[in-house]
Amino acid sequence: MKVLAIYGSSRANGNTDHLTDLVVEGLPCTKIYLRDKRIEAIEDRRHTAEGFQPVDDDYDQVISEVLSHDILIFATPLYWYGMSGRMKDFVDRWSQSLRDKPNFKEEMSRKKGYVIIVGGDNPRVKALPLVQQFQYIFDFVSIDFGGYVIGSANRPGDIMGDDRALFEARKMKEEIVQLINQRK
Amino acid sequence: MKVLAIYGSSRANGNTDHLTDLVVEGLPCTKIYLRDKRIEAIEDRRHTAEGFQPVDDDYDQVISEVLSHDILIFATPLYWYGMSGRMKDFVDRWSQSLRDKPNFKEEMSRKKGYVIIVGGDNPRVKALPLVQQFQYIFDFVSIDFGGYVIGSANRPGDIMGDDRALFEARKMKEEIVQLINQRK
Amino acid sequence: MKVLAIYGSSRANGNTDHLTDLVVEGLPCTKIYLRDKRIEAIEDRRHTAEGFQPVDDDYDQVISEVLSHDILIFATPLYWYGMSGRMKDFVDRWSQSLRDKPNFKEEMSRKKGYVIIVGGDNPRVKALPLVQQFQYIFDFVSIDFGGYVIGSANRPGDIMGDDRALFEARKMKEEIVQLINQRK
Amino acid sequence: MKVLAIYGSSRANGNTDHLTDLVVEGLPCTKIYLRDKRIEAIEDRRHTAEGFQPVDDDYDQVISEVLSHDILIFATPLYWYGMSGRMKDFVDRWSQSLRDKPNFKEEMSRKKGYVIIVGGDNPRVKALPLVQQFQYIFDFVSIDFGGYVIGSANRPGDIMGDDRALFEARKMKEEIVQLINQRK
Repeated sequence: MKVLAIYGSSRANGNTDHLTDLVVEGLPCTKIYLRDKRIEAIEDRRHTAEGFQPVDDDYDQVISEVLSHDILIFATPLYWYGMSGRMKDFVDRWSQSLRDKPNFKEEMSRKKGYVIIVGGDNPRVKALPLVQQFQYIFDFVSIDFGGYVIGSANRPGDIMGDDRALFEARKMKEEIVQLINQRK
Repeated sequence: MKVLAIYGSSRANGNTDHLTDLVVEGLPCTKIYLRDKRIEAIEDRRHTAEGFQPVDDDYDQVISEVLSHDILIFATPLYWYGMSGRMKDFVDRWSQSLRDKPNFKEEMSRKKGYVIIVGGDNPRVKALPLVQQFQYIFDFVSIDFGGYVIGSANRPGDIMGDDRALFEARKMKEEIVQLINQRK
Repeated sequence: MKVLAIYGSSRANGNTDHLTDLVVEGLPCTKIYLRDKRIEAIEDRRHTAEGFQPVDDDYDQVISEVLSHDILIFATPLYWYGMSGRMKDFVDRWSQSLRDKPNFKEEMSRKKGYVIIVGGDNPRVKALPLVQQFQYIFDFVSIDFGGYVIGSANRPGDIMGDDRALFEARKMKEEIVQLINQRK
Repeated sequence: MKVLAIYGSSRANGNTDHLTDLVVEGLPCTKIYLRDKRIEAIEDRRHTAEGFQPVDDDYDQVISEVLSHDILIFATPLYWYGMSGRMKDFVDRWSQSLRDKPNFKEEMSRKKGYVIIVGGDNPRVKALPLVQQFQYIFDFVSIDFGGYVIGSANRPGDIMGDDRALFEARKMKEEIVQLINQRK
C-alpha cells in the first residue's frame, strides 16, 4: 500500500498543507505539490479522429505517480466553494488518460481515495457540494472513497485551532496506517 | 443592460457552445471564449505583505469585461462533475480582484448571473453540486442568481436532441430580453 | 407497465396535484392521495427479537399498490425543503417491508421512479437536496430514477404560469407513454 | 440560555438518543421525545379564508417549548436519507405557527440550532442533503446554524465505536457550555 498525497494549494505551508502533513507525517508517502508542476487545462479532443495530442507539461509524470500508488489523498483549499483550479485542471486531464490508456479505469478502480478540504467561509456546510463532487469523480473510476476531512481556517496557522479537523486528521491517519499494515 | 457570455469549454462548437448560442442569439452580447485566453491559476498571496503581483496574462482584460457588463452567463461543460478547469482558474483569480480592487464586490453585487451546464453522465442529478457551488459563489459577491439550464449531451450535436434544455434555453433568453427591455 | 401516482400533498387540488395530473392525464394510472390514508410514523423495531408488530392503518394497502405497479410517481410539495411529512412517514415504513417481505427489495428493483416537486421559495435551487435524497432512496432499493420536475408556485393555481414545469411535465408524460408502449 | 433537545427517533435508547445524551449530559436541558407526543401531519390551510383549524394533539405544547428555549438541538436518525417522519411532521406544522403567531419568525430568529444525525449507510456522505435541508430550514426562520454531528451506526450501541462522532459531540457540548456561560 503506497500513499500519494496531492497538494492542490497554490500557497506553500498554508493551512491545507499543514493539515495534510498531519495525516501523512511518519508514513511512507510520496508528496506532489501541484503548484510546482505545470499542468495545462485540457483541450477536449475526445471526439476528434486524431484524438488527444501530446502536451509538453508535467501531466504524464503526475498521473504515472497516481497510477503507481494505492492510496490517494486529494488535498485542496476550498477556493470559491470548489477544488483549486490547479487540481481541477489536473483532474480534467484524466479524460485524456481515459481515452489513451486502455487500463486507466481498471487501475484507478483498485485505489482508495481520501479528501482533505480547508476553507474559510463556513466550510462544514459550504464544502458539501465539493464532497459530493468527489464522490461522483471517485464513482466514475470506481475509486473507493475512504473519507474526508473539512477544516476551517482563514489566516495562516488557523488550522491548528480547529480541534475537529485535527482529530479527524488523526483518525484518517490511523485508518491509513491500518490499511498499510493489513495489506502489506 | 449589457450581456456577457463566458464560454468555458475547451472545444469549439461543442454542445455547451451551441446551447449558449441559442440563449444569446440575436441579443447584443459580448462573447468571451476562455479557451482563447491565457489565464494562469491563482497564486494565493492574500496573506503576504506585498500582496498579489501583476500576472502577464489575459485575466485583467477578461475581468474588465465582466465588470463592464450587467448580465453574466457562465457556460461550462460538466467536466468531472464541476466547471471546466479553465473557468475555475478564472473564478479563482477573483480573489486577486477582491484584494486589489476596492469596489470589486460592490460592482459584482449589481450583476445578474446565469449558468449553463452541459454534461453526459446523468447531469440533471450529477450537476446539482455544481449548481449549489454557483449559488455560493454568487452569494459571496451578491450576484443575483437568475437561473440555470442543465443540458444532456455526449457526442457532438447531441444537445439539439435535448428538448428540455432547448426549451429552458429559450425561457432563459426570454427572461434576459425582458430584463434588457425593462432597464434599458 | 402500470402507473401509480402517489400524491403527497395535504391540500386537495393544489399546485402539486395539478402538475401531477398533467403528467398522468389520459394514461391508465392508479392515484393514491396520502391525505386520504392513515399511515402511522414508523416505530423502529428492526433490532428487536419480535420484530415489527402489525399496525392498524392503511400502510399495507398502499404498499401493495406500490408493489403491483411498475412506474411510480412520487409527487410532493416542497414542505420545509423536503418531501411532505405524510410522504416521509410512508417511505419510512418501507423499513418494515424490508424486514417482513423477503422479496421487497427485489420487487422494488424492477420499478421506475419519477419525482414531481412543487415549491415556493426558489425551488429550482432549494429542492436540489430533496432530489439527491430521492436518488439515494431509489438507489437503496434499486429503483431506476426516470427523472424529476421541479415546479415553482406559491398561491393556488400559480403552477399554470410556470412554463418550464409545464413543459417538463409534458416531457415526463411522453417518456412514460413510450415506456408503456414499449413494454406492453 | 436554555437548551432544548428534540429527539426524533422512534426507538428509545437508540444510537441517536445516546449521541444526543452525550451532548447535553450535565447541562440544564429540556428533553422532548417526539415518539411520546402525538403530532399530526399538517393539513395545509394557508390559502383558505378560515385558515388553520385547531388540532387536538401535542403540537402546541411542543412548539411552546421550542419558543421558550434559546438553543435547539434537532436529533434525528437518518431514515431514508432524511429526518424521521415524526420530526418532519413536526417541522411541517411550523407553517401553521407562521400564519397564526405573528411573532413566530422573529422569535425563532433569536435561536441557535444544532443538528445531530445518526445513520447506517455511509452517512458522512449520504446525510449531506439533510444538512443542506436544515440549513435552508434555519435560514428561512433565521435560526443561527451552530453546527452538526453525523454519526455512523447500524446496530444498537454502535455509536460508541464512532470516535469521530463522539469527539464532535464533545465539541458541540463545549460550544453550548460556552454559550450558556457567556450569555447567562
